[in-house]
Order: sequence, then C-alpha cells, then structure tokens
Amino acid sequence: MAKKTTKKEKPVILITNDDGVTAPGIKALVEAVAHLGKIVVVAPDKPQSGMGHAITIGHPLRMHAVHLFDGVEAYQCSGTPVDCVKLAVDKVLHRKPDICLSGINHGANHSINVIYSGTMSAALEAAIESIPSIGFSLLDYSIEADFTGAKQYAAILVEHLLKKKYDKHLCLNVNIPAIKAELIKGIKVCKQAYAKYEEKFEERKDPHGKQYYWLTGDFVNFDTSKDTDEWALKHNYVSVVPVQFDLTNYALRQKLISPLTKLS
Amino acid sequence: MAKKTTKKEKPVILITNDDGVTAPGIKALVEAVAHLGKIVVVAPDKPQSGMGHAITIGHPLRMHAVHLFDGVEAYQCSGTPVDCVKLAVDKVLHRKPDICLSGINHGANHSINVIYSGTMSAALEAAIESIPSIGFSLLDYSIEADFTGAKQYAAILVEHLLKKKYDKHLCLNVNIPAIKAELIKGIKVCKQAYAKYEEKFEERKDPHGKQYYWLTGDFVNFDTSKDTDEWALKHNYVSVVPVQFDLTNYALRQKLISPLTKLS
Repeated sequence: MAKKTTKKEKPVILITNDDGVTAPGIKALVEAVAHLGKIVVVAPDKPQSGMGHAITIGHPLRMHAVHLFDGVEAYQCSGTPVDCVKLAVDKVLHRKPDICLSGINHGANHSINVIYSGTMSAALEAAIESIPSIGFSLLDYSIEADFTGAKQYAAILVEHLLKKKYDKHLCLNVNIPAIKAELIKGIKVCKQAYAKYEEKFEERKDPHGKQYYWLTGDFVNFDTSKDTDEWALKHNYVSVVPVQFDLTNYALRQKLISPLTKLS
Repeated sequence: MAKKTTKKEKPVILITNDDGVTAPGIKALVEAVAHLGKIVVVAPDKPQSGMGHAITIGHPLRMHAVHLFDGVEAYQCSGTPVDCVKLAVDKVLHRKPDICLSGINHGANHSINVIYSGTMSAALEAAIESIPSIGFSLLDYSIEADFTGAKQYAAILVEHLLKKKYDKHLCLNVNIPAIKAELIKGIKVCKQAYAKYEEKFEERKDPHGKQYYWLTGDFVNFDTSKDTDEWALKHNYVSVVPVQFDLTNYALRQKLISPLTKLS
C-alpha cells in the first residue's frame, strides 16, 4: 500500500544553483524559504555558470554530504546543475520534490541568458521531470550582493506556488533588480526579451607565445516592447517569465510543412 | 566602401558538431554540401556530447588549424559547440556565414534531446545570431554508421534553404532514421515529442572504496500524437522540427499575470 500523505506533512523543497554550494546566494535562498517546507540542497561543488543544460555522460559523478546550512540536509556534487537535479531525485530524495528552486544566482538571467544559464537549466530540468520549479537571479554579480529584496520575493512566490498547482511543468525565470528592497515596485509577468551578447573574443599570447581567446562581449537589447523582462527590470520590477522546454517553433512549422514535404 | 557581393559569389557554410572534428559524421556533412558553397569548419577538439548550450567563461579557449578535409579550411577549438560558433563568427569568418550546419551527429537528437544536445545548441546559437541553421542527427551511435541517407537529405535541405530565405532565426532539428537510404519515405515537418529519459544512476565503488555514480536511464515516449518527431522517425521519415530560442510559455503567462501581479 502506498504511503498516505497527511495534510500536515511538510512539502519537500529541493534547492540547487550554478554558483556552487558555498555561494552566498544559495544560503540566502535556503533562509528565505526554510519556513515553507523540508529543505534538501544538492548543488555543484564548484562554480558552473554558463553551463546551460549540460549533463555529464563521459565520466562519473561524485556526491558528498556537507554541513553548510543550519539543520538542512545538503550535498555537493561534482556535476553540472542539471546533473544535481537528476541525482537529487534518484539518489537523495528517492521521490520527486514538491518544488525545485535554483539560485539565488549572483547575476542576471533575463532575456537570452535563460539559454546559457546553469541556474535556469536546473529549473527547466525539474520542469521536464514534472516538478514545478523557479530559478531566481539577482542583477548583482558581487559576492557581497544584498539579497534582502530577492529573499522577500522568493518567499512570496514559493508560498503561492506551493498552494496553487498551476502546472506540473511550470518553470519560472525570476529576476530581481539590484536595488534596495523597498524600491522594488512589485512583480511583472513578462515575456523573454530579444536581447543578447555581441561577442568579441579578446586575443592574448601565453608565456610561450601561443595564442588563446577570452570570451567577452556587450549585452545589447534589440527589443523595445514593454512586456519584456528587460523592460520590467529597468523599471524596478521583479520580472517573472514562465518558460517551457518545448522548443518547437509552431508558426514556422506551419510555413514549412508544404515546401519541405515536397522536397522528399 | 562596403564590399559588393556579386551574384556568383559562393555562399559561406559554417560547419560544426559536438562529436569532435575527427568524427566521421562531420566529414560526411562536409562531403554532402561541398558543392553548395565555401565550407569552413570550426569544431570541438574532443567529444562534447550532452554539453547543451554551455559556454566557456571561466577559462580561455584555444583554436588551431587542422588539415582533415580536402581543400576545406578547418579549425579545432578547445571549447563547447556553442563556443565554436561564436569563435568562428568573430575570429575565423569575420562575418556571419550564410548558413550554419551542425553534425551529422552520431545518435538521436529528437524530442527532449534537443535541450541536452551540443549539436542542436550550436545550431540554436547560430539562429540567435541571425544565422539560419540546421542540426543533423543520425539515429545510429556507431562510429561505423552509414551516412548515405543522411547525406542525401542534408544536401536537399541545405540547397533549398540557401535559395529560400524563410527567417534569419530559422533553426531546424533534422533527425534521420538508421535505415538504408532507399527505405526512407521522405520528410515530415514535426513538433518536438514529449519523450524523455527516466534516469537511473548506477552506483559503483572506486578502488579506494569511495562511491561514484554513472548517469544511465531509459528513454520513454509519453507522446502518442502523430505530428511528432518520434512518430515520424518510427515510421521511417526524416523528421524536421523548427526550433526557437524564445522559451516564453505564452499560455502560462496569460494564466499567471493576474494572480502573480497581485502578490506584490
């Protein structure tokens, strides 16, 4: 007989990130939602920013318990943020958590960043596995960042989503402006802006005279509409973009069905 | 004065992959489209399967010319497939190519694989940068795979897309069934199936008695509709899924605007 879940059982909240288990941002997230459920942390053992939806298939993973959060079961994993979610479900929780949270990221993940972000890829992985999820990112890359406002909004959103079951594949990309908590104007539910990096690789020579390249670039916004995350953040709102893992471009599909089918 | 492009100038075709520059699949792709333009190859110097949309920000990149393809300018890069596209545009081509091709991947990238795949992430990166792109994958993981059918369909599709400018952000996920070329029934323009891995990590002990985990799992199809890539491939068609980098879930956004805005 399956275990009966009583009404008073605390929801299980899985927390991960991409800045690594020792980053202040994940500590802030644990503190923000500790009162809302049983927290379990499984996070990378080193920074994994920009890892996107990478998974580790060519070599094995390590995972160790760590004592970094007061009274909270926590593990560091040698893999990517997506690996952490997979490993947490299969080997730590042995069940799906009620919600998966990722972050709070030290730095922005609005607009196109959602694609490169380990923070958001971990959240999206949870959504693929039918676990509602939220990725949180603060627009401040500093290790000393002030997470006060981000923590307030994380608590509000997680409490709401634990009560309201909108969709088992729900995944929210939440960005918080880097301003004092009392200056945040509220929440805007947005679309992803078309704003992206214009890359410039910096060429250098190593001490042996051999060339190498550093990825650098300028972030450019090509999207002037007012319903985007870019706009919301510039105007001191918390931006919330619901994201999905079905990448099908349905409009383009309609356009291509006839000409491409004829090719064969 | 800007260089005038004459009608007779050959289109520039950038080719990359995630199996590495020495994989038979990329050689097959170069051969398949060599007659259609000026080919330039920039591909990883080692296998990068499952790297998703990862980029290299924590350390620098190396890039070296290689002589692997008859009369074709080619480079191997120490980074991810997405890094290869960025580096190719900025440091090799010094312009956007007319089209970017990725593959031919040794193994399937239909349904949810599009998210984990380095092959498809390279193609999607090109689309983000306003370069039309196609990722090709053959449903055969073997190094000895027969690319005959895949090459035929790659040539047909690339020739068509060089003539017809559908969309500067066009990105196609093309999968080819692992059957004899003459048994392929044609092209189906599909949507991405909801089919995914059910992970099981295999636990082992190293020679020092310490635990480690290998990612394994079963691929399960939850989607029985006939307009998916899963269906097309099972019925011996080449599947073509147009994919996009705007991850906004617009339907869920409409549902959430009112309740989440009220929270703030």
